[in-house]
Amino acid sequence: MILEIQRQTNYSLQPIHQRVSVTFRYQVHFTKGLFQLDNPLLARVMTASENSPKQAIAIVDAGLVSQHQDLIAQLSTYARRYNHAFQLAAVKVVAGGEATKNDPQAIEQIQQLIHQTGLCRHSYVLAIGGGAVLDMAGYAAATAHRGIRLIRVPTTVLAQNDSGVGVKNGINAFGKKNFLGTFAPPYAVLNDCDFLYSLDDRDWRSGIAEAIKVALIKDASFFDAIASSVPALVRRDMDAMQQLIYRCAQLHLEHIANSGDPFEMGSSRPLDFGHWAAHKLEQLTDYSLRHGEAVAIGIALDSTYSYLLGLLSRGEWQQILDLLEALGFALYVPQMRQDRLFQGLTEFREHLGGELTLMLLQALGQGIEVHEVDPLLYGEAIAILADRSRE
Amino acid sequence: MILEIQRQTNYSLQPIHQRVSVTFRYQVHFTKGLFQLDNPLLARVMTASENSPKQAIAIVDAGLVSQHQDLIAQLSTYARRYNHAFQLAAVKVVAGGEATKNDPQAIEQIQQLIHQTGLCRHSYVLAIGGGAVLDMAGYAAATAHRGIRLIRVPTTVLAQNDSGVGVKNGINAFGKKNFLGTFAPPYAVLNDCDFLYSLDDRDWRSGIAEAIKVALIKDASFFDAIASSVPALVRRDMDAMQQLIYRCAQLHLEHIANSGDPFEMGSSRPLDFGHWAAHKLEQLTDYSLRHGEAVAIGIALDSTYSYLLGLLSRGEWQQILDLLEALGFALYVPQMRQDRLFQGLTEFREHLGGELTLMLLQALGQGIEVHEVDPLLYGEAIAILADRSRE
Repeated sequence: MILEIQRQTNYSLQPIHQRVSVTFRYQVHFTKGLFQLDNPLLARVMTASENSPKQAIAIVDAGLVSQHQDLIAQLSTYARRYNHAFQLAAVKVVAGGEATKNDPQAIEQIQQLIHQTGLCRHSYVLAIGGGAVLDMAGYAAATAHRGIRLIRVPTTVLAQNDSGVGVKNGINAFGKKNFLGTFAPPYAVLNDCDFLYSLDDRDWRSGIAEAIKVALIKDASFFDAIASSVPALVRRDMDAMQQLIYRCAQLHLEHIANSGDPFEMGSSRPLDFGHWAAHKLEQLTDYSLRHGEAVAIGIALDSTYSYLLGLLSRGEWQQILDLLEALGFALYVPQMRQDRLFQGLTEFREHLGGELTLMLLQALGQGIEVHEVDPLLYGEAIAILADRSRE
Repeated sequence: MILEIQRQTNYSLQPIHQRVSVTFRYQVHFTKGLFQLDNPLLARVMTASENSPKQAIAIVDAGLVSQHQDLIAQLSTYARRYNHAFQLAAVKVVAGGEATKNDPQAIEQIQQLIHQTGLCRHSYVLAIGGGAVLDMAGYAAATAHRGIRLIRVPTTVLAQNDSGVGVKNGINAFGKKNFLGTFAPPYAVLNDCDFLYSLDDRDWRSGIAEAIKVALIKDASFFDAIASSVPALVRRDMDAMQQLIYRCAQLHLEHIANSGDPFEMGSSRPLDFGHWAAHKLEQLTDYSLRHGEAVAIGIALDSTYSYLLGLLSRGEWQQILDLLEALGFALYVPQMRQDRLFQGLTEFREHLGGELTLMLLQALGQGIEVHEVDPLLYGEAIAILADRSRE
C-alpha cells in the first residue's frame, strides 16, 4: 500500500496530536419594548447572518405570562409584522423557576417540538423568562441537531446580569443542581428592562446578589457603586438597576472571554464565589430560597469564613454584610445548621472536577483560592450569622 | 451610581460584543494489547494532567464482550495493577450497534452511574466499542457535570478511522439519526488494532467505506493506495488495514482542525459526502445495513449522480464503483426505490441547517458543493445501480 507515511509496525505508528479551536461570537443587547412593532431588534438579530426568513419556536416562562397576559399575542403580532425575517412555528409555555429544571419531561417536550416543527440547525429557539427557563430551554436547544441557535430573552435581574449572558445551560438531576447540561454560547442575548417592572420585590432584589458577588472578586469600585445606590435600588429606580445590570453583565462576560478557561476545564471557577453553599441551600430548602437569595447567604458565609481565617479585614467583612442587609437579604436560614450543608462542598468539587478549589476573599474586589476547608471554622461562621439574624 | 460607563437612557446602552475562544487538544494513539499489563499507555493517559489517582467508569460494547469474554476481567486486572493511576469505579456492558443509540434509557443509565459513583468532572468515562457505543456513551459523558472527560477506545475499523476520532456524539430520537447530541472533543482516543482481528467480515469491510469517502473528497493518492491494497484488505492483512486506518484518521482529523468550522456552524459538511442517503437507508432498512455499508451505497449513489450531472468523468465514476464492489460492498438495496429516501435530503438539510448543501464529486479527490438536486436524475442513478446489481 503506497502511502505518505512509512510502513511501520503497529506500535510505532506515531500518535496524532489534535488541536481544535472554536470561536463563538454573540452580542448582548439592551433594549426596551422588545416585542413592540416599532422595535426591529429581534427581527434584525434573526436575519443578521442570512437573508432568508427563519423558523423559530418560543419557550416562555409561565411566571412571566401570568404577569404579562398579552405577551404571547404580542409576540405573534410581532412575528406577523416581521414575517420577512422569521416565522413563529410554535409557542410553548413552561413552568418557571426551579420546577422547570427539576422536570425531566420539560427537556424532552422541547426536543419533540423541535422535531415536530422541523426546525433546522440554523433556526432559532427563543427562550423568554427567568434563568431557570433559559437554562432548561438552552439545554434542549443545545442538544437537538447537536445545537440549534438559542436567543435568550432574560426577564429577571439575575438572568439579565449573570446566567442569561453566559455560556452554560443545564437542568437538575438525581437531586444535584445542574447535574446535566452543556457549555453552549447563545446566538444572542436580548435584555429588555421593561420586564423588570413586573418582578416582585424578592426577584428584583435576588439578582443583585450576583452583582455583589462579581464586584467582590473582581472590582472594588463596582462594590462601592452598588453600596451608594442602595436607596435607589430599594425604591426600585430602573436607571440604577440598569447601570448595575450592565456592569455586572460586562464583568461576567469579560471573565468568560479572558479567563483562558471559558468552558471550565480546570478546577478553578471564581464566578462561583459563594455558590457551594448557595446551591446546597436551594436544595435543602426545597427551592423556597431563590437562587440570588441563596447566593446572598453563600456570600455572607464565605465572607465571614474569610474574615475568621484572617484573610479579610473586619471592616471590609462588615461592609459586605451591611450591604446585603441594607438591600433586604436575609443572611441565615436554619438549614445552614444541617450537616448535609457540607455535602455541598463535595458536590461542588465533583461538579468542577479535580482538587477542591474554593474562592474566598482577601479584600473587596480581590478573591483568593484555597484548597482546604476547616469545618469547625465554618461552623463558627454559621453561628455568627445565626446570632446576627436574631439581632 | 458611580460607574465607568456613562449614564444613558436604556436604549443607548451599547451592545456588548462577546467573543469566546476555546481550544481543545487530544491525542489519537495507535497501540496493541491496550489492556495487557505491560502496556502503560492507558494509565499514562489518565495521569497526564494530574498526578493523583483518578476515578473511571467503563462502558463496554456487548458485541465486543461476546468476542472477548475475558475483556472485563482483563480490564479489572489492569486497573488493579495501575491503581496509582486510576480506580475503576464501575463497568457497564451496553448493547452494541444502533440499538444502543435507539434506546433513550441507555443514556440515562450512564448518567445515573456517573451520579452514583460520584465521578467528578476530571474523572474518566472509558468507552470501549463500536461507533454507536462511543456516540451514546460520549453523549452521556458530555452532559453529566456539563462534560466529564471521555476516553474513547474504538474497536471497529469504522470507529478507529472516523467517528471515534472526531468531535461529535449523539443518539437517535424521533426516528431521526443523531437527532440528539453535542460537539464535544474527547480527552483521548486509543486505537488498538488487536480488536480488529475478531471483527466479522462485514464489520472489517464496512469501515473501509469511510476511508474511500474521505479519499474521494480530499486525496486522490489515498484513493489509489486503497485501490492497490484491495487484495491485502480482502485477505484481512492487518498491516494494510493499519495503514488505511491511520491515513483515514489523519485526513478526518486534519479536516476538523483546519476547516475553520469544527463545530459545523455553517451549512457545509464535506465529510458527510454520501451520507444523506446513507443515514436514511440505515433507518429504512431497520438498521440491517451497517453504517459503513450504507455509506458505500451513498457514495455509489452520489458518485453516479455526479457522473450523470456531467461533473465526474465516466472513467473515474467507474473506478469508484469498481473499487467498492471489489471490496465486497453491495451498491443497491430495494429501499432506494422508496420515495421516502428523499425525505433523507430534507432531514439532512435540517440537521446541518440553512441552505441545502450537498457534496458531490468533480474528480477523484475533489469534491464540489451543490445546493439543488434533480430528483429525476437521482432516480436514474438509482436505476443504474439497480441494473448493475443484477449483473
